[in-house]
Amino acid sequence: MQSISVSDIIVKKAAESRIDQVDFDKLVFGTVFTDHMFECDYINGHWQQPTIRPYGPLTISPAAKVFHYGQAVFEGMKAYKDDQGKVFLFRPDENFNRINKSSERLAIPEFPREYFFGALEELLRMDNDWIKPGLGNSLYIRPFVIASEIGVSASAANQYKFMIILSPAQAYYSGDVSVVIAEKYSRAADGGVGYAKAAGNYGAQFYPTRLAQEQGFQQVIWTDANSHQFLEEAGTMNVFFRVGDKLLTAPTNDRILDGVTRKSLITLAKDAGIDVEVRRVEVSEIVEAAQQGTLKEIFGAGTAAVVSPVKAFSYRGTKYDLPAQESSYAIRFKKALNDIQYNCAPDPYNWRYPIN
Amino acid sequence: MQSISVSDIIVKKAAESRIDQVDFDKLVFGTVFTDHMFECDYINGHWQQPTIRPYGPLTISPAAKVFHYGQAVFEGMKAYKDDQGKVFLFRPDENFNRINKSSERLAIPEFPREYFFGALEELLRMDNDWIKPGLGNSLYIRPFVIASEIGVSASAANQYKFMIILSPAQAYYSGDVSVVIAEKYSRAADGGVGYAKAAGNYGAQFYPTRLAQEQGFQQVIWTDANSHQFLEEAGTMNVFFRVGDKLLTAPTNDRILDGVTRKSLITLAKDAGIDVEVRRVEVSEIVEAAQQGTLKEIFGAGTAAVVSPVKAFSYRGTKYDLPAQESSYAIRFKKALNDIQYNCAPDPYNWRYPIN
Ligand SMILES: Cc1ncc(COP(=O)(O)O)c(C=O)c1O
Ligand SMILES: Cc1ncc(COP(=O)(O)O)c(C=O)c1O
Repeated sequence: MQSISVSDIIVKKAAESRIDQVDFDKLVFGTVFTDHMFECDYINGHWQQPTIRPYGPLTISPAAKVFHYGQAVFEGMKAYKDDQGKVFLFRPDENFNRINKSSERLAIPEFPREYFFGALEELLRMDNDWIKPGLGNSLYIRPFVIASEIGVSASAANQYKFMIILSPAQAYYSGDVSVVIAEKYSRAADGGVGYAKAAGNYGAQFYPTRLAQEQGFQQVIWTDANSHQFLEEAGTMNVFFRVGDKLLTAPTNDRILDGVTRKSLITLAKDAGIDVEVRRVEVSEIVEAAQQGTLKEIFGAGTAAVVSPVKAFSYRGTKYDLPAQESSYAIRFKKALNDIQYNCAPDPYNWRYPIN
Repeated sequence: MQSISVSDIIVKKAAESRIDQVDFDKLVFGTVFTDHMFECDYINGHWQQPTIRPYGPLTISPAAKVFHYGQAVFEGMKAYKDDQGKVFLFRPDENFNRINKSSERLAIPEFPREYFFGALEELLRMDNDWIKPGLGNSLYIRPFVIASEIGVSASAANQYKFMIILSPAQAYYSGDVSVVIAEKYSRAADGGVGYAKAAGNYGAQFYPTRLAQEQGFQQVIWTDANSHQFLEEAGTMNVFFRVGDKLLTAPTNDRILDGVTRKSLITLAKDAGIDVEVRRVEVSEIVEAAQQGTLKEIFGAGTAAVVSPVKAFSYRGTKYDLPAQESSYAIRFKKALNDIQYNCAPDPYNWRYPIN
């Protein structure tokens, strides 16, 4: 392998920052970007010299394979700033490993660790002012890879572009969410790409999600495509069910994204002495628990919203409301996670990754 | 609906044609493009004024949703020129209907018929010289739609770009193909987007196809994701099996693309008095037929290669060779189809669409 280091990154600074034009109290998630972005091309079997340059448009052929064949993967992570101005990532190794796992499934070449971390550190130093302290504020980080080779024949590309763009984010409060349990549409096939953060997995969900929205629900909880009997995950979140004081969540498999928030919550819950069952969760047992009053909580877990409580779900045309919880696991573990992320609590698991 | 017509297209002609730089005897499929392309943006709930302009790169935000969420669909069709210089499309209505069916599933707004046909006719007139007469020569036409709105949040875009690019193609002879029957990986889920020409469906196949290629096979024949017992289709072709003198092919469903070549071949075969069974085809019956010597042919059917004979397939580690056929259905129906496409035979089905 070629030997590479952060010092290999060509840095072109923006002449002027755009930060003064941004109202940080009125951010719409994922629509405002910082001054710089990272770019690295894969050509002739190698990742070429990486560049950080002013955030701006790409010039790309309409015949680039990404437009036609969806050969693209991405990641989603956040940088947090504590009250002393120190900046942290949260378990970035997980995202690094996952993007390469996604890439492998999409026949995209692996990206080198040194470039990934070198890029993140340099970008976060350069765009440090865009990271605002305060609980809920963060800088959303979007690494992604696209097939840039020209060609409208359906085969893996020989050229790729790895990029990182950064978007300041506020506390993501979407209100309590109502969800529909999928009975007809599905997100992923056995033997498919559901476990990868492959671009096509997301576009494929927009239509069924829109149908759910037209019925007054915000999201879909996907079930297995074969039988629609087992609960899997939501569009961009893994899902937890609290029945009595037990926490249930589906095991990861080749249909389900192995979420960093999910695995962190499992660790926190177990270490707090909570009974966590990672196993196939039947729709019928959740419906029954709802009917019997033992279903106390459902919540989604993912980087963007951290923990997202579900206030009602719909299944076979019946809507089941969840009771308000005095001592909610969702709120408790969101706080525990945030405390670690914002450097407000000890970090026994070594999840924080400081940017110097 | 807004009223629209061909005369609404803004046409910017290329200053000079690039056609002299192209060696038409050495075309690599899908890599060379004509002088012009069509572009139409969807903004504020409407398709805006369409444009034909010189073929060239797009300027597009790295945050455009297509890069992140694979919200993109496409079509593949061809224009043919007869010896008198007349140009024809083949059943373009099918492609028009299909791209809108694909778009619906991907939550992309429908594209107007007048724009689609207006664009095709104008483009084919302008780039007429790029269509070479002679059996096998054609102009491959790639309409596609991409989500152009900026935003790294996973929801349907509000802005789209519909484009058509054109690529001259020669007779597509890939040699007889050897295929692997899928046992582990799969292409599409029940309730998923397999029936749509959604970009993500293709990228998802590259890795398993590469694994097949590493074993010396060119393509994968996909089976149903649930049981891997039923034969579905190949990467960009529907598949036919000839057992004795009977022709078998899978019915279309929400996992399988409703191919124009497939449906045309079914019509031609039925009208030629051949027994065509459109039904679920079991892997086991094909393996048995191969063992008993009653499996006479397998061939793929799709716009790019028209008909692609399969010379061997592999299943559970065993390779089954197909016998050479004296009077092959594949060759017979490829000729029958080509004769109609190139205006060398009567067109009883009204499949030809002349461009004036
Ligand atoms: C499909 C899917 N499931 C779950 C998650 C949650 O994963 P993480 O906690 O790593 O953000 C995401 C978002 O990243 C996702 O896209
Ligand atoms: C998945 C798939 N199946 C089948 C086909 C064949 O369809 P058609 O005959 O319309 O080209 C294609 C190509 O368009 C395809 O992409």
